[in-house]
Amino acid sequence: MKTLKDPIHGNIHFSDDEVRILDAPELQRLRNIKQLGLSYLVYPSATHSRFEHSIGTYFLANKLAASLKLSKEDVQKVRLAALLHDIGHGPFSHSSERAILTRFDSKFSHERNTARILKKSPISDYLKEIGFSGEEIAKIAVEGKSKFSEIVSGEIDVDRMDYLVRDSYYTGAAYGTIDLDRLIDTLQLKTGRLVFSENGFSAAESMVLARYLMYPSVYEHHTTRIADTMFTYATASALEDKIFTPEELYSMDDIELISRLRELEGTPAHLVERIESRKLYKRAISFSKEDLGKSFLKFLRINPKQALKLERELLNKCKLSAGEVILDIPDPLYVKEARAKIFWKGKIRELSNVSPLVKALSAAQWSYWNIAVYCDSQNLGKVQKAAKKVLL
Amino acid sequence: MKTLKDPIHGNIHFSDDEVRILDAPELQRLRNIKQLGLSYLVYPSATHSRFEHSIGTYFLANKLAASLKLSKEDVQKVRLAALLHDIGHGPFSHSSERAILTRFDSKFSHERNTARILKKSPISDYLKEIGFSGEEIAKIAVEGKSKFSEIVSGEIDVDRMDYLVRDSYYTGAAYGTIDLDRLIDTLQLKTGRLVFSENGFSAAESMVLARYLMYPSVYEHHTTRIADTMFTYATASALEDKIFTPEELYSMDDIELISRLRELEGTPAHLVERIESRKLYKRAISFSKEDLGKSFLKFLRINPKQALKLERELLNKCKLSAGEVILDIPDPLYVKEARAKIFWKGKIRELSNVSPLVKALSAAQWSYWNIAVYCDSQNLGKVQKAAKKVLL
Amino acid sequence: MKTLKDPIHGNIHFSDDEVRILDAPELQRLRNIKQLGLSYLVYPSATHSRFEHSIGTYFLANKLAASLKLSKEDVQKVRLAALLHDIGHGPFSHSSERAILTRFDSKFSHERNTARILKKSPISDYLKEIGFSGEEIAKIAVEGKSKFSEIVSGEIDVDRMDYLVRDSYYTGAAYGTIDLDRLIDTLQLKTGRLVFSENGFSAAESMVLARYLMYPSVYEHHTTRIADTMFTYATASALEDKIFTPEELYSMDDIELISRLRELEGTPAHLVERIESRKLYKRAISFSKEDLGKSFLKFLRINPKQALKLERELLNKCKLSAGEVILDIPDPLYVKEARAKIFWKGKIRELSNVSPLVKALSAAQWSYWNIAVYCDSQNLGKVQKAAKKVLL
Amino acid sequence: MKTLKDPIHGNIHFSDDEVRILDAPELQRLRNIKQLGLSYLVYPSATHSRFEHSIGTYFLANKLAASLKLSKEDVQKVRLAALLHDIGHGPFSHSSERAILTRFDSKFSHERNTARILKKSPISDYLKEIGFSGEEIAKIAVEGKSKFSEIVSGEIDVDRMDYLVRDSYYTGAAYGTIDLDRLIDTLQLKTGRLVFSENGFSAAESMVLARYLMYPSVYEHHTTRIADTMFTYATASALEDKIFTPEELYSMDDIELISRLRELEGTPAHLVERIESRKLYKRAISFSKEDLGKSFLKFLRINPKQALKLERELLNKCKLSAGEVILDIPDPLYVKEARAKIFWKGKIRELSNVSPLVKALSAAQWSYWNIAVYCDSQNLGKVQKAAKKVLL
Repeated sequence: MKTLKDPIHGNIHFSDDEVRILDAPELQRLRNIKQLGLSYLVYPSATHSRFEHSIGTYFLANKLAASLKLSKEDVQKVRLAALLHDIGHGPFSHSSERAILTRFDSKFSHERNTARILKKSPISDYLKEIGFSGEEIAKIAVEGKSKFSEIVSGEIDVDRMDYLVRDSYYTGAAYGTIDLDRLIDTLQLKTGRLVFSENGFSAAESMVLARYLMYPSVYEHHTTRIADTMFTYATASALEDKIFTPEELYSMDDIELISRLRELEGTPAHLVERIESRKLYKRAISFSKEDLGKSFLKFLRINPKQALKLERELLNKCKLSAGEVILDIPDPLYVKEARAKIFWKGKIRELSNVSPLVKALSAAQWSYWNIAVYCDSQNLGKVQKAAKKVLL
Repeated sequence: MKTLKDPIHGNIHFSDDEVRILDAPELQRLRNIKQLGLSYLVYPSATHSRFEHSIGTYFLANKLAASLKLSKEDVQKVRLAALLHDIGHGPFSHSSERAILTRFDSKFSHERNTARILKKSPISDYLKEIGFSGEEIAKIAVEGKSKFSEIVSGEIDVDRMDYLVRDSYYTGAAYGTIDLDRLIDTLQLKTGRLVFSENGFSAAESMVLARYLMYPSVYEHHTTRIADTMFTYATASALEDKIFTPEELYSMDDIELISRLRELEGTPAHLVERIESRKLYKRAISFSKEDLGKSFLKFLRINPKQALKLERELLNKCKLSAGEVILDIPDPLYVKEARAKIFWKGKIRELSNVSPLVKALSAAQWSYWNIAVYCDSQNLGKVQKAAKKVLL
Repeated sequence: MKTLKDPIHGNIHFSDDEVRILDAPELQRLRNIKQLGLSYLVYPSATHSRFEHSIGTYFLANKLAASLKLSKEDVQKVRLAALLHDIGHGPFSHSSERAILTRFDSKFSHERNTARILKKSPISDYLKEIGFSGEEIAKIAVEGKSKFSEIVSGEIDVDRMDYLVRDSYYTGAAYGTIDLDRLIDTLQLKTGRLVFSENGFSAAESMVLARYLMYPSVYEHHTTRIADTMFTYATASALEDKIFTPEELYSMDDIELISRLRELEGTPAHLVERIESRKLYKRAISFSKEDLGKSFLKFLRINPKQALKLERELLNKCKLSAGEVILDIPDPLYVKEARAKIFWKGKIRELSNVSPLVKALSAAQWSYWNIAVYCDSQNLGKVQKAAKKVLL
Repeated sequence: MKTLKDPIHGNIHFSDDEVRILDAPELQRLRNIKQLGLSYLVYPSATHSRFEHSIGTYFLANKLAASLKLSKEDVQKVRLAALLHDIGHGPFSHSSERAILTRFDSKFSHERNTARILKKSPISDYLKEIGFSGEEIAKIAVEGKSKFSEIVSGEIDVDRMDYLVRDSYYTGAAYGTIDLDRLIDTLQLKTGRLVFSENGFSAAESMVLARYLMYPSVYEHHTTRIADTMFTYATASALEDKIFTPEELYSMDDIELISRLRELEGTPAHLVERIESRKLYKRAISFSKEDLGKSFLKFLRINPKQALKLERELLNKCKLSAGEVILDIPDPLYVKEARAKIFWKGKIRELSNVSPLVKALSAAQWSYWNIAVYCDSQNLGKVQKAAKKVLL
C-alpha cells in the first residue's frame, strides 16, 4: 500500500496493484503535463499537473463509489477508470488536442487516445494481469458505455468536481468552491442513472455556477486564449510540416513539445519564443454572438477547413504572412452540467428543468463566447479593418 | 494601538481612539449576540457573534476606503461607521427585531435603533470628543444619507462582503466564497456613486450568486426558520405581556433574553424550552408562490395585524390555544445586490441589466420563498387541513 | 441517519441511535458552553462550543477506530465515548471546574462529573436500551480503565487532536496546525497500547509543538488568565455563599451562570461586571520559576487552603477587601503528550526518549509558567510591594 | 499597474516599472524552474515555481518594509531586491547548483550568480534606467551588505516566510504554518538591525519549528534525496563532459536541462530515465552522526574531491562502474533562524539564547542528518558491505 499526500483531499491511499499503474510511464508522463496548459501565464501559480488531478479524481471516485454502495469489484473498476481517465491527454492538455483536431483528424480527441492506450499498451496488459480488461475500463473512463460512466465522465462527475476545486486552489480564483461532501452524499443510483436527491439541489446548482464563474476568469481568460491560440498554431504548423505525427504528439509531455518547438525555425519557433518571453499578440477585434447577428450560426457550425480559409483571407487582405494573424473561433458553449439528473418530486428530471437559475445560466454563458482575431500590436489597425470585412 | 486577530482577515489594527469605542459597553454587548441567531441549531459551529462581524466590516471598510483614496478624515468616518453599524441589533439579531416590528412598531428597525444610539448615548458623546458627530456616522452607517453610505450599507457593501465570507467560514457551507480582493480592487467612486469597473463583473456576479446559494442552505434553512419563528413568538408574547419594552429588548444580549424567557411561565417559556431541548415544531404545510396563485400578492403585502388574524383563525379552526400553531410569512425577497452599479461600456448601469444571470437570479430566488405553518407533530393533520381552508 | 456540517471535518454522520444521544439535554447543554471559556475576550472569534468539539472528537474517534480495524461493536463504543467525553463540563469549561476544585472538593473534577452522568442519568438509561453500559463508556471516555481509553483520553488522543485544530481555526492563531491524516494513519494498537509507528514521528512531534505554541498564545494568554481568575473568584464566592451547589453549577450552561452572577450583589457581581465591560484587573507582578528560586517547589505543591491564606495575607497587607487582590497560581505544567508511545527501532518507547525536541520542550514549557497577582490599576504599587514580601 | 493573483497572499500589485522587470526573460525563466526541484516525485502537487515564490517574497517584502516605515525609495529598493533575489537559480533549483558547486567551482553559488546577473545583464541596464543600480540591489538581495539585507536575506526574512508557507500549501504538509501577520507586525529596526519585539517571541519560535518539521518531511525527505542525488550526478557528469558550461547551466530552465539530459547517452541519460520512470535507486545504508562517531567531523568538513574519492573507492570495492553507486553527504545542518535577533528585557539577543526550545532544536536537527549510499536494488548487499568498510 502507498499513500500520497494531496493538499486538497489529504492522504490518498493506493493498493499495491494500483501502485504499479501509478508508476507506469503512461501515468508518470502526466506529471509533466500542466492541467491548465498556458493559464500559468495569467495565474502564475497554476502549475499543477494532470497527474495530481488524476489521483484527485481517483480519490473522489472511490468515495462516491463507496457511498453508492457498489460491489467491491465495481468500486475497483471505477477507481481504475478514474485514475486512468486522462492518460490520453497530450502536452499542454487542450492545446495539442486542438492542433490535432483542427489540422489532422477531427475525431482523434484525447478521449479516443485514452481509449486507444487503455486497449493496447503495457497498461492494458497489466490490467489484464490483475483481472480487468482495458476495454471495460475505457467504457467507464471515456466512452460513456458503462452504467458507471456517469461517475467518472457524466454531467456532474468526479472529474469535474476535482478540477473545479483544484483549479480554484491553484489559481487562487475563489470561484471553484463547491461542497464536495454534499455532492457525494446526495448522489444516488436510480434505475441505472446517477441522480441527485432533492436535498442535493443547492450543491448541484452551486457546481454549475462554479464552472460558470471559472469560465471567463480562468478557463477562457482572454489572455490565456491568445497564448493558447498562438501555441496551437505553432503546434499545428509542426504537425503539417510532419515534424511529428499526431500519435507522437499525444505521447509527448510539455517538456518534450516545448523543446521540440524551440528547436524549429520559422513561424512555430517565433510564436513559441513570443509566448515564452510574454510578447503575446494583441486582440485586434472580437465579435460576440450579438455582433455576429445572422452569421452567428455559420460560425457555430464552421469546420476547420473553412476556418483556415477565412484566416488566409485575412492574411491576404493585410498582406501579412502565415501566423501573423490568428483567427480564434471557440467551440460552441454547452453547459453539460445543466443536464445532470435530479430526483424531484418523485420524478427524475434534468437540473435545468428544475432550476430556473441553471436554465438562465445556459443562456447567459453565451455572453462569454466570441470569435477573435489576434496579431502583433503594430498590425492592429489593418487587421481590425480586414476582420470586419471578412468576418461580418 | 491595539491588534485583534481574526481568522478571516488576519490581524486587525485599531487606533487608541477606536479602542475606546471598541471597549464601550454598547459594542461589547455584541459579543453576546449571535450573528446568525438560532442557526447554530442546524450548523453547530455557527456561534460567531456580531462583534466579530463588526470588526471584520471595519477591516474591509478601511481597505475599501483606502483603495478609493478617500481623505484621511473620510477614511476615519467610514471606519467608525463600519465598526458601529450593528450596535442597534437586539438579541439573536433578527429574531428580536422581528418581534418588535410585528407586534409593536413596524418602523422600529435595528437600523433605526442603531441611529438612535449613535445620536444619543455615551458613544455619541465620545464621538464628539474625538471630533465626529453621531449624526454624521449614522448617515453613513444606516441611513443612506451620505456619499459614503454605499461603502457600508449599499447594494454590494463591506457589511455583506464580511458576513457572506464569515457565515461561510463558521457554518462550513461552502457557498459564501467570494473574491474580496477583487471586489475591493474593482470598486471605484464615479460621480459620487460606488461603481464596479468592467473587470469587476465576475466578482460582482459571484457575490450575488454566493448570497443566492447561502439563502436556502443557511439564511432560510427550513429548520432554522421553524426555530426562529418559535423564538420570535415567545419574545413577542413577552413584549405583549409588558415583561419588557422594545427599548429594553434591544438593549439585551442573548444571555439576558434567554434567561428572562426561561423564567417566564406559559407559552413563551414552553416554546423556549422546546427550542432548547430541540423539540421543534414540525412544518404542517407550506405554500410556494405558485401554490398561492392569485393570493400571492395578498401575502406579499400583508401587514402584521392581518397575519395575526389569520393565525387566530387557524387556532380556532383547530381548537388549539395561542402559540400552538404558528404562521410564518417571510418578507418579500429582494436581491438588493442586483441593483449594484457597474461601469459598462462607458455608462453606469445596474448589474441586473448587464448580467442576464443576475436578472435570472432575482426571479429564481422566489422559488425559495414560501409561507409555512408550524405546530406540534401530533397536530399536523388537522392544522394542514385548516391551513388549506384559511390560507388558500 | 443524520448529517451535521462541520467547518473542520466536513460532513459528520450519526446513526439514529446516536441522534437520540445528540438530542439529549445533557449534550445539548454543551452548545451553550464555550470551549475556550473567556478566551473570546482576547480572540473575539473564539466563541465555539463544547458541542462542536464533541462531535469533532466523535468524528476523529470513528476514523481512528476504523483505521485500527476495531470490531464493529468496539467502534461503536469508542464513538459513544468520544461523543460523551465532555458532558461533565461546567459553564465556561475550566473556570467553573476550578472554582469547585479549589473551594469545595479537589476531587470533583469535570471528568468525575462526566463519569457520574454516564453512570446515572437519562443518558445511562438510554445507553442501556441500545445495548451499552454507562460504566463501560465512562471507562473509555474519562477513567482510563479500558484498552480503548487511549483513543479518547490518552497522551495523543482524538480529544486533543480535535481541540488543537479547532481552537486554531476559531482563534485564528496559526499554531494548532497538525497533520490529522498522518496522525491517524500512523497510530496502531500494539500489545494493547496505542503506539505511533516510526513514520509517525514528525506528526507526533508536531502535535506536541502545536500545543506548546498554543499555550502562551491562547490557552494561557496573560489577559485570558486575568479574566479567568476573576471569573473563577466570582463563581467560587457564589459557591461559598451557597447560592448554588457544585452539582448545580456543573449542570448550568454559560447563560445560566452569567445571569445568576449578574443578579448577585457584592464582589461576585462586581467582578463579573468588570469582566463584561472589559475593565479587567491588571497584573501587579508575576514570579517565574527562576524568580521563585527555592520557594518554587512550595508553590508547585500548594493546596487551595494555603493559597487562600496567602491571598488573605496580601489583602491585609494592602488593607484591601476580599476580591480586590487575586493570587493566581496555575497548575504545574506537564506535557502529557511527551509520554505518547512510539514504536522505535523495534521497541515501544516514550516520545520524549526518542525526540530530543520533545524532551527539550517539556523543560521549555516551564518558561511560560508563573504565579501572578492581579488588582485594580490604582492599587498596583502597593500590591506589588506586598506581593514581594508575602510571596518571595 | 498590473495585478497578479496568488493563492497565498491574494492580489499582488506591481507598478509599471516593475512590470517591465517581471516580464524580463531573466525573471520569466523562473516560471519553468520548480521551487522544490524533484520533490514532486514524493509530493505530486509540489509543482510550484520560483516565479511564484519571487512574487510572494516581493509581496511580503513590501509589507514588511511598509510596516518598518522605510522611506518610499527604500521600500522600492527592497521590493526590487525581493523580486529579483532568485534570478540566479539554475534548473531544479538546488540540484543544478550542487552539481556546479561540487564539480566545478565551490564558490559559484546561485547567490553569486544572482549578483552577477544583477550587475551585468539587460536587467541591470533597466534598473539603471529607473534610477537604481544593480550593485545596490544585489547588496540587499544576496550579498548581505546593506542595512536592508536582513529583510530579504537574513535569519528570519521574507524569503523564508514565503517559502515555508508556500511549500506547505503546495505539498499539503501541514507543518509550514506560520503567523505571517504577527511576524511582520513584531519585526522592527533597532540600531540598524532587524529585531523581533518581545511579543513576537512565539511567532519567531514557530517559524523555527516550522522549518524544523518541514526538514525531514519535505526538504530532506529520503526519497527526494535519492532522486536529487541521482539528478545532480547526471548533471555533474554532463558538466564534466563539457556538454554545457556552468554559466550555460545556470541560464537554463527545467525544460531545457531535462531535454538536454534526455538526449545524452551513457550514465547521465540512464539516471534521468530512471528518475523519470520512477525506478529510483535504493538506500543501501546510511550513517547518522552517532553511527559515525569520531569520523563525523571528517565528513562535516569533507571537500568535493575527497567525497568523489570515497565514491570511487566504493565503486572499486563493488566492481561497479561510475554512477552505479552514489554517495550522498549533505551539507552540515545549521539552523540559521536560531540567530535571529529579539529585543528581550531591554537587550538585543539571539533567539536561541532566549528560547530553550530553539536551542534544543539546533541540536535536535542533527538527528535528521546522515550520510547515505544509494544503488540499484540488486546491488544493495555488496554496496552495504563496502560502505561499512570504506566509510566507517
